[in-house]
Amino acid sequence: MSFLREISPLVKNTFLSERDVLSICAAQIAAEIQQDERKNYNEVLDLSSGDLHRGGIKSITFVRQVLAACFYPALLEDDSLPLDVKQRADGLLRQCDGGSVGSYTDSCGIVKIKQCVSKFITRRDGGVPSSPDNIFITSGSQMLMLKLLVQSGGSCRTGVLIPVPTYATFTQALEDQGAAIIPYHLCEEQGWTLQVEELRRALHAGRRTCNPVALYICNPGNPTGIIQSRKSIEEVIRFAAEERLFLLADEVYQSCVYGEDTEFESYKKVLSEMGSTIASTVELASFNSASKGFMGECGLRGGYVELVNLDPAVKEYTRTLFSTRSSPPVGGQIALDLMTDPPKPGDPSFLTFSEVEVFGEIPGISCQPLKAGFFVFPCLHLPLRAIKWAKKKQMEPDMLYCLHLLEETGLHVRPGCEFGQRKDSYHFRFDTMEDALQRLKTFHKQFMKEFS
Amino acid sequence: MSFLREISPLVKNTFLSERDVLSICAAQIAAEIQQDERKNYNEVLDLSSGDLHRGGIKSITFVRQVLAACFYPALLEDDSLPLDVKQRADGLLRQCDGGSVGSYTDSCGIVKIKQCVSKFITRRDGGVPSSPDNIFITSGSQMLMLKLLVQSGGSCRTGVLIPVPTYATFTQALEDQGAAIIPYHLCEEQGWTLQVEELRRALHAGRRTCNPVALYICNPGNPTGIIQSRKSIEEVIRFAAEERLFLLADEVYQSCVYGEDTEFESYKKVLSEMGSTIASTVELASFNSASKGFMGECGLRGGYVELVNLDPAVKEYTRTLFSTRSSPPVGGQIALDLMTDPPKPGDPSFLTFSEVEVFGEIPGISCQPLKAGFFVFPCLHLPLRAIKWAKKKQMEPDMLYCLHLLEETGLHVRPGCEFGQRKDSYHFRFDTMEDALQRLKTFHKQFMKEFS
Repeated sequence: MSFLREISPLVKNTFLSERDVLSICAAQIAAEIQQDERKNYNEVLDLSSGDLHRGGIKSITFVRQVLAACFYPALLEDDSLPLDVKQRADGLLRQCDGGSVGSYTDSCGIVKIKQCVSKFITRRDGGVPSSPDNIFITSGSQMLMLKLLVQSGGSCRTGVLIPVPTYATFTQALEDQGAAIIPYHLCEEQGWTLQVEELRRALHAGRRTCNPVALYICNPGNPTGIIQSRKSIEEVIRFAAEERLFLLADEVYQSCVYGEDTEFESYKKVLSEMGSTIASTVELASFNSASKGFMGECGLRGGYVELVNLDPAVKEYTRTLFSTRSSPPVGGQIALDLMTDPPKPGDPSFLTFSEVEVFGEIPGISCQPLKAGFFVFPCLHLPLRAIKWAKKKQMEPDMLYCLHLLEETGLHVRPGCEFGQRKDSYHFRFDTMEDALQRLKTFHKQFMKEFS
Repeated sequence: MSFLREISPLVKNTFLSERDVLSICAAQIAAEIQQDERKNYNEVLDLSSGDLHRGGIKSITFVRQVLAACFYPALLEDDSLPLDVKQRADGLLRQCDGGSVGSYTDSCGIVKIKQCVSKFITRRDGGVPSSPDNIFITSGSQMLMLKLLVQSGGSCRTGVLIPVPTYATFTQALEDQGAAIIPYHLCEEQGWTLQVEELRRALHAGRRTCNPVALYICNPGNPTGIIQSRKSIEEVIRFAAEERLFLLADEVYQSCVYGEDTEFESYKKVLSEMGSTIASTVELASFNSASKGFMGECGLRGGYVELVNLDPAVKEYTRTLFSTRSSPPVGGQIALDLMTDPPKPGDPSFLTFSEVEVFGEIPGISCQPLKAGFFVFPCLHLPLRAIKWAKKKQMEPDMLYCLHLLEETGLHVRPGCEFGQRKDSYHFRFDTMEDALQRLKTFHKQFMKEFS
């Protein structure tokens, strides 16, 4: 008896991305290193997931102290912890039923933490009001929003506009929900900018095969490392208003902004300043997370979505949808509290960086400067021989490059084919750790020589 | 512009259970108590969710100490923590990328913890082998299994057999996935036992309207407080084999077993001892969780499913389905490690209770004895006047009872109408805390008098 016949067809379509091949290789190399069978390098450096702690960045002490005291309140009596840590932990425990982080919370999140998030947003947006009622804390808010938006069954599939390149998880989530993906291309030549004409082209193309209802934007960009200008955001909002599209704004890298003239402005803020008709009608969901930014707490699973201009009935449905889930992990909720209300301004929370020309000097790689986020998405100008060799192996050329890079240097990055890219262009996603850059430079020269 | 028209029809059908009315009332009463407007009692006792910590039960110190040390590894140097706590935390941190619980883990869970779960299962089942490959750690394993099982679209809906009474969350999850619910009634008169004839009746009725593919069992029972005999489990497995049904065994209360002759036997163990044809073919998913049992860590979101006899291709699909999710919360994973490998036998982990005749002496309430789990599901023999009065108010009679109970005593329990029950029978779910029982007894006498 096989259960295969019963499997949902949607699940069958879920693709395994090429990164799994790289992950398997990376695990194998790590095992070989443990058995002293490798010489070139001492460890695999995992740059594949944007996971700060995996990459060796330390967690923020204040965050971890508060978490420890919440989990084990006997520490509130411990002299080794700072007073503000204990006060914060004590305050948070009072918000937990039975005074325990082991209790279920409201399925939309602890009310006090939603208030905290809401105040943070108001501060961030220079006073634009935010209501805790519009905040939904969850470890899978994008998934839930898609569940709300995407009609299953019916003759015409629900379409969502998504950028190329974009990270695979979101594309997978869309496929998972049975949505039609309508790709729009970011313009690499102009610093990966979003062009409204391209949105329009994509939308009209999409309308021939599905029912487009939403436009997904990632700002600051993953993997592109860019940040949208205010003008560009206004254009996108106007486009969404004209075409009656729901805006899904992935703004999880909002705290990673580098360069003197670079400033993050949220879609919500810009929307609120665009005149009453647009400001009060365009529907928007803005996502943020404790996994990214200066927190980097991927393992805690804390994120939120803020809903703007939603029909009250729809908001009620959203609440109902959330209520069918158990509460979000309490550790992740606490992380959000600490992220949105850090101990004081001027602390590590407010790290600043200057704009980085990461790849300026490497022949065969061109790269838009890093403006925001964790990543850059450098373009590989590969020798024809490398491309032919890859195709012979039935492999994407940038996948070939990444496999070699992993094998030779222990750098585990992701190939551009996974994010989407224009035909016959090749990329990889990279983050900007000094050690990684050195390994890459040495490897790249060798690779280009080998395949020239 | 309203987004209402775009909402997925499935979401629209998600129902808000009656418990929300009670939750709203409970919150209001709690607020009134804070403002000294209540006299009868000092606090609302929340028995609505099976949440131990909310109900005032303390967390296990070992568990919380290990968690605290994992979140804040500086505690590994702290003399106040026991050595075995530090060793365990240190060992767990070594399994985390970058040595941090803030890193993503494998989306099916940390390998070492899956091994730990697997060894626990082998011990529990007296040596029946278990492979970590068949263990999937997640905070929503039931949801994910349903996603795998339930076909969306198509002319014939996927059907799942579920018991009456059962807790509302699972029913909601099924509706959420668009599955057809095929109810089978547990026999209250015979101690809420599961009767195969009733399964057969329900299945044949179900086949007229949908395509039944799975049978869901909750053992030990929620809300019934019963435990299945080995004979009953064997009958169910044979039925599943004959009818080619996938078994979904919710065994999250497996560690809560009371009474001298009462023993928990897992579906997997019984299945393994039923002769090779059945033992090697009946497909089974068994669920367990750190939210229930002696851990009671609902807020951490740690659970797992073990898959038995799945076609390798299907298991691969399952892995793919999991890989589209981010990793499960690391705190919950750690809780599973501690639950399945507690410090030593004889510790609080191994609490035993004797069988409890909870309601023996209250006229108007009859109740099967508590054998396992947290809950009993007592039957209310309500006066006709109470029933008529409730119907006039367009309210289920047991809802009326629960509202009065909350108002008068501060006990927040759930009405039977939420779990399902035979027509014209009324119940409520109750757990067995002494304080709650005293409050109930006083109230019940008064209620019966008022409506007689």
